[in-house]
Amino acid sequence: MKQSKLFTKTRKEAPKDEVSKNAQLLIRGGFVNKEIAGVYSFLPLGLKVLEKINNVIRKEMNAIGGQELFMTVLQDQEVWKQTNRWSDEVVDNWFKTNLKNGTELGMGFTHEEPITKMMKNHISSFKDLPISVYQIQTKFRNEARAKSGIMRGREFFMKDLYSFSKNIDEHNEFYEKSKIAYKNIFNTVGIGDMTYMTFASGGTFSKYSHEFQTLSSAGEDTIYVCDKCSVAINDEIIEEQKSCPECGNTELRKEKAIEAGNIFSLGTKFSEAFDLTYKNEKGEETLVIMGSYGIGPGRLMGIIVETLSDEKGIVWPEIIAPFKVHLLNLGQDEKAEEFYEQLNKKGVEVLFDDREVSAGEKFADSDLLGIPYRVIISEKSLAEGGVEVKKRNETDSEIISIDDFLNKLK
Amino acid sequence: MKQSKLFTKTRKEAPKDEVSKNAQLLIRGGFVNKEIAGVYSFLPLGLKVLEKINNVIRKEMNAIGGQELFMTVLQDQEVWKQTNRWSDEVVDNWFKTNLKNGTELGMGFTHEEPITKMMKNHISSFKDLPISVYQIQTKFRNEARAKSGIMRGREFFMKDLYSFSKNIDEHNEFYEKSKIAYKNIFNTVGIGDMTYMTFASGGTFSKYSHEFQTLSSAGEDTIYVCDKCSVAINDEIIEEQKSCPECGNTELRKEKAIEAGNIFSLGTKFSEAFDLTYKNEKGEETLVIMGSYGIGPGRLMGIIVETLSDEKGIVWPEIIAPFKVHLLNLGQDEKAEEFYEQLNKKGVEVLFDDREVSAGEKFADSDLLGIPYRVIISEKSLAEGGVEVKKRNETDSEIISIDDFLNKLK
Repeated sequence: MKQSKLFTKTRKEAPKDEVSKNAQLLIRGGFVNKEIAGVYSFLPLGLKVLEKINNVIRKEMNAIGGQELFMTVLQDQEVWKQTNRWSDEVVDNWFKTNLKNGTELGMGFTHEEPITKMMKNHISSFKDLPISVYQIQTKFRNEARAKSGIMRGREFFMKDLYSFSKNIDEHNEFYEKSKIAYKNIFNTVGIGDMTYMTFASGGTFSKYSHEFQTLSSAGEDTIYVCDKCSVAINDEIIEEQKSCPECGNTELRKEKAIEAGNIFSLGTKFSEAFDLTYKNEKGEETLVIMGSYGIGPGRLMGIIVETLSDEKGIVWPEIIAPFKVHLLNLGQDEKAEEFYEQLNKKGVEVLFDDREVSAGEKFADSDLLGIPYRVIISEKSLAEGGVEVKKRNETDSEIISIDDFLNKLK
Repeated sequence: MKQSKLFTKTRKEAPKDEVSKNAQLLIRGGFVNKEIAGVYSFLPLGLKVLEKINNVIRKEMNAIGGQELFMTVLQDQEVWKQTNRWSDEVVDNWFKTNLKNGTELGMGFTHEEPITKMMKNHISSFKDLPISVYQIQTKFRNEARAKSGIMRGREFFMKDLYSFSKNIDEHNEFYEKSKIAYKNIFNTVGIGDMTYMTFASGGTFSKYSHEFQTLSSAGEDTIYVCDKCSVAINDEIIEEQKSCPECGNTELRKEKAIEAGNIFSLGTKFSEAFDLTYKNEKGEETLVIMGSYGIGPGRLMGIIVETLSDEKGIVWPEIIAPFKVHLLNLGQDEKAEEFYEQLNKKGVEVLFDDREVSAGEKFADSDLLGIPYRVIISEKSLAEGGVEVKKRNETDSEIISIDDFLNKLK
């Protein structure tokens, strides 16, 4: 795409009321727009990144058998009363609204209740199980404060998967698969090495749940890392669980971190409330065992910006970058246009800075936007035999012939 | 996909409180789930159709230069006060909610206001224009009654595009392009021949706006069709506009119809309220001319079901069908599995009914689900040389060799 056609403009300064680094950079780059504290629109560049993150997540969810659906925002209070989660005393971050006739509705902050109820139409026999379903959908949480940019919003995207199993063994098998799927996701988007599977409190059904915590000075959580096993323990349970649950190591490293995802065994809590049962092979009505598995794609985008950016701007991992190549034309209109066409023909995602602005402005914007390959075409580069290529996360550039660059991108 | 793995089950009866044909069929087929009146979740089959409709729309919006973004549900009341649209007396279908501190927020029923405000960050010079942006996003309208299934929901998907132009000529040029884009969309999804561009009231800026109305006995609108020009006039303006605006024809055919889309010249109504201006070539601050262009993808799905289905079930046009082929195995497990693999390898989207249920049940479900090609593999079909192929919208079937069928689908 030509940058002269991209409607968003970069800014030198973020809005003064924006205190989080991720939102500051994303607003300055034109990736998101702040509507209200904790409520951000996604502009074209931001939406491209988000969709790529969504597709990384989808691929892993599909691989473990997840079927995608899309639940609603508006929630019937009767459904939530069945699990005692309607009351504002029990759930303190509901957004609620009203129908014309005065009936109060909720705005979904999660979807266990409606999805369990819906499953009653589709589960009756052992032959129907196991099932896992997921969605990538907008959720609402009425946070008293919202200071973490897109890492903790009042309105945010969530991938939530729910599993339905015949028994504990079947549930555990899926739960273990989900751990691997989650690790794959964090590795793929470039934060695997700083993201730890973290033991957290498990509720009545299982001893632990698991969070995936990414080390970050902006994180609101504290975790204790076991460097032998590359797992961690959440602050919440460190008093009961003072050593690594995997190897017994007691030398744990205390770190600040942000929760990038979590997986949770729900047992029969919801199936009991909604009487979600199946007939087993003996014809007996049996409660379904459930689990829930969350990742916030927008939060993940925020974490990536928060942890991988440098003083000049964002550094996108290639797989989720809005474009692969940022082509900067420095006064070589014809040659640059021709090269741009060649890249397009090869199917390379390229942002072509064809604007009539100074070289300095182009460089600064390129660093801010964080596209993996910055490619300069200038009189100097052509005289030296081609284009000047620099990766966003490296300091040195190299001159390379146009053909070599095209081949390199294959 | 194997139907035995698809978690949704078909039903013989729709819920008793569901009065609309589109929702009855979609619920029976497992495409959607009713959460509250006018509020429907999209299950895997329904989401597949919706995504295909979205992609048809995206293609046309991108072709006329639209840049995709994603605005928020939660709305700052201050923004809406600037155009006097915050009050419930002015806009009677707001859903509103509250922050913890008591501040009232709106839930977007449209996005002119926030998008105009946001554009102030990105438009300053004549060089920045024209711009058109769009989103496919969830909107909320607090309808007193909701009886039209997914054709008129309280929570629904909307594609809304907004155009920003330097002057009336530039606006008109885009407006004409949008008409063609809309016609392309309705033609592509299979309702072009029953969808009429309809003259409707235009507001202060232009004499007319334009709706795209699809003939349907379930429609809530009345239109007057000019058969000479294949355009129509909306009931609202028929008293002032008694003849076809294109040819003067006064012999108009009165029909019931449902609005499938609309396009509207907004003039400077919103740019004035938000002081959205650009510097023209003489350096003068000039108000931007805007337009808005809506299509509801979920509504479109409802219209297609409402108008193209028959007494046995849904009839999906091929381009938006959840699968292209419905393969029914009647007792030929090995051969059917092999054929299924061949179809998958060729990249054909196939739903393979591998369930252990009667042939009659498979036929009934196949008619209900409405997949374009029903392909039966049975002892009889194999004895006669292949598979029995019937298109959903035709009555006759034919026996065709497996190789010929595979070639036919190329």
